[in-house]
Amino acid sequence: MNWPWGYPMRRLMIALVLTTVSATAVQAAPAMPKRDAFAAAIAARHDRTVQDLRDWIALPTIAAMGMNVKEGPEYMRKLALDAGFQQAKVIESGGVPAVLAMLDAGAPVTLGIYMMYDVKHYDPAEWSSPPLEGRLVDRPGVGQVIVGRGAVNQKGPQTAFLAALQAFKATGRKLPVNLVLIAEGEEEIASTNLPNVVANPEVAAVLKKTIGIIGASALQNSEGTAGISLGAKGAVEFQLIVGGETSDRYPKADVHSSVHARVESPAWRLVKALDTLVADDGHTPAIDGWFENVQPLTPRQKEIIANGLKGTSEAEAKAAVGVGRWINDEDYQTSSERLVSQPTVNIQGLVSGYMGPGGKTVLPGRAEAKLEFRLVPNMTRAEAEAKLKAHLLKRGFSDVQVVVSGGYGPNQTDETAALVKAQQRTLDKQGIPYRLIVRNAGSWPGAIFNGAPLNLPTGQFGLSRGNGAHAPNEWYLIRSANPKVAGIDEATLAWVDLLYEVAAAGGKKK
Amino acid sequence: MNWPWGYPMRRLMIALVLTTVSATAVQAAPAMPKRDAFAAAIAARHDRTVQDLRDWIALPTIAAMGMNVKEGPEYMRKLALDAGFQQAKVIESGGVPAVLAMLDAGAPVTLGIYMMYDVKHYDPAEWSSPPLEGRLVDRPGVGQVIVGRGAVNQKGPQTAFLAALQAFKATGRKLPVNLVLIAEGEEEIASTNLPNVVANPEVAAVLKKTIGIIGASALQNSEGTAGISLGAKGAVEFQLIVGGETSDRYPKADVHSSVHARVESPAWRLVKALDTLVADDGHTPAIDGWFENVQPLTPRQKEIIANGLKGTSEAEAKAAVGVGRWINDEDYQTSSERLVSQPTVNIQGLVSGYMGPGGKTVLPGRAEAKLEFRLVPNMTRAEAEAKLKAHLLKRGFSDVQVVVSGGYGPNQTDETAALVKAQQRTLDKQGIPYRLIVRNAGSWPGAIFNGAPLNLPTGQFGLSRGNGAHAPNEWYLIRSANPKVAGIDEATLAWVDLLYEVAAAGGKKK
Repeated sequence: MNWPWGYPMRRLMIALVLTTVSATAVQAAPAMPKRDAFAAAIAARHDRTVQDLRDWIALPTIAAMGMNVKEGPEYMRKLALDAGFQQAKVIESGGVPAVLAMLDAGAPVTLGIYMMYDVKHYDPAEWSSPPLEGRLVDRPGVGQVIVGRGAVNQKGPQTAFLAALQAFKATGRKLPVNLVLIAEGEEEIASTNLPNVVANPEVAAVLKKTIGIIGASALQNSEGTAGISLGAKGAVEFQLIVGGETSDRYPKADVHSSVHARVESPAWRLVKALDTLVADDGHTPAIDGWFENVQPLTPRQKEIIANGLKGTSEAEAKAAVGVGRWINDEDYQTSSERLVSQPTVNIQGLVSGYMGPGGKTVLPGRAEAKLEFRLVPNMTRAEAEAKLKAHLLKRGFSDVQVVVSGGYGPNQTDETAALVKAQQRTLDKQGIPYRLIVRNAGSWPGAIFNGAPLNLPTGQFGLSRGNGAHAPNEWYLIRSANPKVAGIDEATLAWVDLLYEVAAAGGKKK
Repeated sequence: MNWPWGYPMRRLMIALVLTTVSATAVQAAPAMPKRDAFAAAIAARHDRTVQDLRDWIALPTIAAMGMNVKEGPEYMRKLALDAGFQQAKVIESGGVPAVLAMLDAGAPVTLGIYMMYDVKHYDPAEWSSPPLEGRLVDRPGVGQVIVGRGAVNQKGPQTAFLAALQAFKATGRKLPVNLVLIAEGEEEIASTNLPNVVANPEVAAVLKKTIGIIGASALQNSEGTAGISLGAKGAVEFQLIVGGETSDRYPKADVHSSVHARVESPAWRLVKALDTLVADDGHTPAIDGWFENVQPLTPRQKEIIANGLKGTSEAEAKAAVGVGRWINDEDYQTSSERLVSQPTVNIQGLVSGYMGPGGKTVLPGRAEAKLEFRLVPNMTRAEAEAKLKAHLLKRGFSDVQVVVSGGYGPNQTDETAALVKAQQRTLDKQGIPYRLIVRNAGSWPGAIFNGAPLNLPTGQFGLSRGNGAHAPNEWYLIRSANPKVAGIDEATLAWVDLLYEVAAAGGKKK
């Protein structure tokens, strides 16, 4: 196996060879002194960095279960201080606390960093190694990976960012930018209280000084192509509930089904309410006024989508979700535009009455649908909630309870933003191919920074790769078997690169 | 405690006192010789009868689990032979076998007896005593009851019938009627193969000779009022299934919900299909042609319903199902007519995607609705299935799979039938108050005998009481604390009475 990223000279050669294939013009950046010194410091600290990640994995914060909701933020606070932030404090959110940390380098530019310190729940019985152990495993054809809950979502990528700050300490270099870190413990429950945190005057004041907020991710594919995302759909999760608990028309518990002849059924009521939410085609949202603020794709966005599809396989894309056809039997480009541009109303799950094998003669006392909206610009969470409730009330469904469990709107950053240009230059200079992504169909809470009142550019950055977020055997790549794909050390060095490119973006905000 | 039914002289006094309150004219029946001898024989055999029931409870046949599907029918066969049937054989059904038994008494009249030897499944953890032990327990205010799976549904009532035959053996009396017994092992899976059994030429030939088919039940309420049922709705259980297994438009498994923007949802498809099956009121069946063969109630049937409501409490009826209002806020009489007269399409359960607490961002790969029809005269199971399938296909739901797991149509017997008159005389002579029941909203497979080609009168008979069918701690009353309510010995004697009254109905069929 070959670890070319550990050797700056070879990195330079690769950069020289590949830089011509990148589509974006390379701007001049301030010279980064001693890149080889950074690389050496990162390599020297490798075992400690991996141990840091293992220690973090060993402390799972799970908001939905109330697990480590005090230990998690305190640990996050110490990680920040240890990495060089001069100030770090726990911020009450109304739920699991957030952490605010600041690093003043006396620089003209301040960058915002978003982190999540919580993880999704896990069932150890489904894992090949203990989910909190962070075992190092050889993954054939991929390299050495760390297996554990949170490995890729997001403790591994975030550890690479923190290791970059450690490299500044080790080399005695001052950061070229100031940093503001905001870390939440409720990302896996739809960032329920992050809006409260951002509304905190102290937090808002420091965030306003940033040129934008970036999150740490692992965005390379198996061939080494990175992604630069310009946005993400919003997501709002909610449940519709009908039953004895919402109206005395329905039984309080499951009863013998013969009585349905004179007793209303919560399951039918739920079906009738759900039916009004999408058109008869089974996918177009039909909530009153749903498309009022939906922006169509621009020609440039369609062009970016088309560029992104080059060299990818439609058959593989279909196989990845296990379908033979897209909606309306659309072609690859059209369905990809639909994926990016369309708001959705999705049923996550249906729960009512008897759910075992075969049948059982009961009239359910309760019926629940779990749903989620995916929102596109310029929809907002508040708009979506209000329109849903008005839609149901207008049709008389006052007995259908709406429980919103969390969510946020979409985020969208223009490709001309300094934060985007800095990412492009970082990748271009190192000869790393990348695709622009108009908008992730998946969601992250960038909207909370990207929307009013902060209106900040947002993005996600990070080399290396991983998989299994929310699933068993989640992993993050530590040492790559493919020289085109970064391991954790190369991902760390890329963060050093990015901080210099962000500095080069200018000092309009401090 | 007082057991008046064990003392024939007192029984006679009660009969003399109470007979004037019964509404039906008492016809002359052939004198039943030595009723006191029967009562004494039954009392003498009490412990053995209870032990017979305990032994039967200890051998549960559960068709859905393949439990004791060979042992169950063989045991049923031996029970019949031991009770005095001269012939008893196992009849293949295509599923769990049936048992056919015949007792030729040389009488002019032949009575058909329906039994089920299977039981519903059970979870011992939910029981206060082991469900197969048949423990005798004192139930305050009720008396001594036997607790076990099948106690009331239907091994207890059926044991009372078999004990009546044992009483004929013990007293050396010849039965006043011939008997044909048909016993199935699939009642709890909607009598899936009973139509095959009845279509067996040997079975059909002997059933045709009967004046009707009667099942053993426990039909007294807590005040001692018995019921004579003139029919029951039919029930057809089925599931609607949509997903990767039915069309390549849907994912083969749950996938990340962001892809719903370009991938169809089985859950929405199911909602759209379901929505067409009932009207927007949430209860009126909307399947094409559903009401074509539905017979409205006659004025006499409405009168019987009104009589049945006398002395009962609407508030208690609502409390029993945990509702504050009937459909359309109807009054007691109207809602009771609706209960008896309306066919239903009930959702028993909904199953799709994520079903735990809160939400989870998945697009389900499968959605299933469990449903059941309740059918009224003159609907048939075949008609219901055909209309459902035609309705869905007409609307393009060819990707919605219909799985019919079992069922049968309604049964209805005229109150002038000899089988009904015999029941009335039996109760009248003993001064036992009773209500006529136009049609049970619940179902039993009487339709398989009552419908074409046999077209036999059907009914259910039996004193004593019990509760908990399909639930934990099922019980049947052995020794009653209330002199107006029968225990198992009095229920046994009532079967002796009934056989003489059936004989008195005349010998039109042998």
